[in-house]
Amino acid sequence: MTASHSLKASAPPPTPLSAALTNHLSSILPSFLSRDSLRTSVLPHLLTSIAATATALRNAQDVSLAGSSNSFGDDQLNVDVLAEEAIRLCLSQCPSVVTASSEEDPVEKPVQHTGLPFQVIEAEQDRTHGEVYTVAFDPLDGSSIIAPNWTVGTIFSLWDGTSALGASPRQKQIGAVLGVYGPRTTAVVALRLPGDDKGVCFEVGLSDTKAGQQEWDLIRASVSYAAPPFKTRYFAPANLRSTNTHAAYAKLVAHYMAENYTLRYCGGLVPDVVHALVKGHGVYLSPVTETSQAKLRRLYETFPLALLVECCGGRAIDPATGKDILGDNGLEGCDERGGIVCGNAEEVQYAKEVLCG
Amino acid sequence: MTASHSLKASAPPPTPLSAALTNHLSSILPSFLSRDSLRTSVLPHLLTSIAATATALRNAQDVSLAGSSNSFGDDQLNVDVLAEEAIRLCLSQCPSVVTASSEEDPVEKPVQHTGLPFQVIEAEQDRTHGEVYTVAFDPLDGSSIIAPNWTVGTIFSLWDGTSALGASPRQKQIGAVLGVYGPRTTAVVALRLPGDDKGVCFEVGLSDTKAGQQEWDLIRASVSYAAPPFKTRYFAPANLRSTNTHAAYAKLVAHYMAENYTLRYCGGLVPDVVHALVKGHGVYLSPVTETSQAKLRRLYETFPLALLVECCGGRAIDPATGKDILGDNGLEGCDERGGIVCGNAEEVQYAKEVLCG
Repeated sequence: MTASHSLKASAPPPTPLSAALTNHLSSILPSFLSRDSLRTSVLPHLLTSIAATATALRNAQDVSLAGSSNSFGDDQLNVDVLAEEAIRLCLSQCPSVVTASSEEDPVEKPVQHTGLPFQVIEAEQDRTHGEVYTVAFDPLDGSSIIAPNWTVGTIFSLWDGTSALGASPRQKQIGAVLGVYGPRTTAVVALRLPGDDKGVCFEVGLSDTKAGQQEWDLIRASVSYAAPPFKTRYFAPANLRSTNTHAAYAKLVAHYMAENYTLRYCGGLVPDVVHALVKGHGVYLSPVTETSQAKLRRLYETFPLALLVECCGGRAIDPATGKDILGDNGLEGCDERGGIVCGNAEEVQYAKEVLCG
Repeated sequence: MTASHSLKASAPPPTPLSAALTNHLSSILPSFLSRDSLRTSVLPHLLTSIAATATALRNAQDVSLAGSSNSFGDDQLNVDVLAEEAIRLCLSQCPSVVTASSEEDPVEKPVQHTGLPFQVIEAEQDRTHGEVYTVAFDPLDGSSIIAPNWTVGTIFSLWDGTSALGASPRQKQIGAVLGVYGPRTTAVVALRLPGDDKGVCFEVGLSDTKAGQQEWDLIRASVSYAAPPFKTRYFAPANLRSTNTHAAYAKLVAHYMAENYTLRYCGGLVPDVVHALVKGHGVYLSPVTETSQAKLRRLYETFPLALLVECCGGRAIDPATGKDILGDNGLEGCDERGGIVCGNAEEVQYAKEVLCG
């Protein structure tokens, strides 16, 4: 991945949306909100990039190391490179996305709208009331479980304006999209525009059409955590090893086991969080201890997940402080890190009491 | 699913094998073994059924309950029905597979070779020295994690002869195939023919060809657990709730946590076992307690997994007795159940000492 992101391949053709999904987007983003570009360009292009990444992954049987490292020193897999490239290409087709950065290259840079003449970009910006967005993304989360062919995902964070830095995440982060690559290709989309405290969240799925093409369709118009009582309660404890040095975390895990919670933990942030959303219950815990430093990236991981969880009626806190993740101050840099505890609000409250005293 | 398995749809065309995979099959099943049908018909048709199931799953966005129950009283998902149908159709094209049963319909019945004229079947049996096989299969293992789009799988158990009942699993079960439906479609194939104590195991993957078709290719010619020392040690504890009533299991889980094992447990038998095979290390535990009865089916789950694990140099025991699963007596019925502890031999030995005293 070069610093300039000179894209040699051409962008994939947009993946069509079904009539039901198009109608749903119109109903949650009516014209008077002046978010035409979000509805007709940004979200469709993000979904196209998820479809393109799914195709690349499906054929990436050789998941050996690509021989390079990203800026965090992680081993970089060749499929990470494929996903990064697919997403950058799709963003290049989206005039209102002016800034982008990714976990693989965590520096905000202007998006080059390759192949789009200046007049087209200008006309599009006029038409769409000058909407301007910044996209931050983790192209392929879950590197450790790609080789065994477990479900992995892509995380997008969408911000109003020309930068995600310095801005209040609660006010300026307006959307989060999770791409889920499993037996099916699905995505969970959350939006919370200024003036809307609650937000919306819905699920879409990619299907083959009879014409041999692919199409995004609406699976669930509204995704949210369920209300008690729960038939089954789930917990997903990341970094379980740290229970050896973190007494409060050990106590919390013992609580879930004593209370007969069901364990589901695949070690991929996207599938672990999506599991709880589909089941209606679940708490995901990635604590921070003195011996086990914060690993998750705020911009590419905890901020978008927190927005999504809140839009589903749940809660997401920083386990180091107990504060809401979206209550944090703005980011000073793209590579800030933290932990997360998220899920049903009552579960997060209990975990907070145990972890933060 | 009717009792007669009258198949209304037509069988999918065989999914081609790459030259590398065809050569690999010839090298592990040379002509003098007189297993031509296994090499040219049975394994290719099982792989075709996995490809067909993957396609059906990819488009099954509506994973709501199908409104029926299988013989064990489980809720049956519509995707289970799709997988069962796809597999039955492929078996119908395979003259040497004369008997089949599945977890969804656990009664051994003659396979109807739909569309194959009697003369074709007779000629094929003459050509292949009268090979005769029984197939037992779990069409879609991991129902609980299909809705959240986590990786799931198909399990095949392959037996010499006209029935799997009454025969010694160590002598008569000659093969096991796991289909893995994740971001990619892969399969792990184990074979152990009479006279070969060790057996072989290899991994294949399904890719799109440039011509727009699909093809099975060889990913790894040999799959096996690694030898110590291990960089990372993994554990997958099924039914963790039972630690509340099973002191030995609680002690074992505490051991893994104290010893800094990494937790990976998705709750799908196929992905959980395959994870350890790809990583080279891992122990999967599905214990049996007085309050938590044995849930896994011997014929459709523990027998084929045990064969596969042994072919990879690992070990699989019944946690109730501590004995090797394949050392069990033959099955009296298709619905017998048991637990399993499997993985690297040294891990299974340790678990056995703790669980069985």
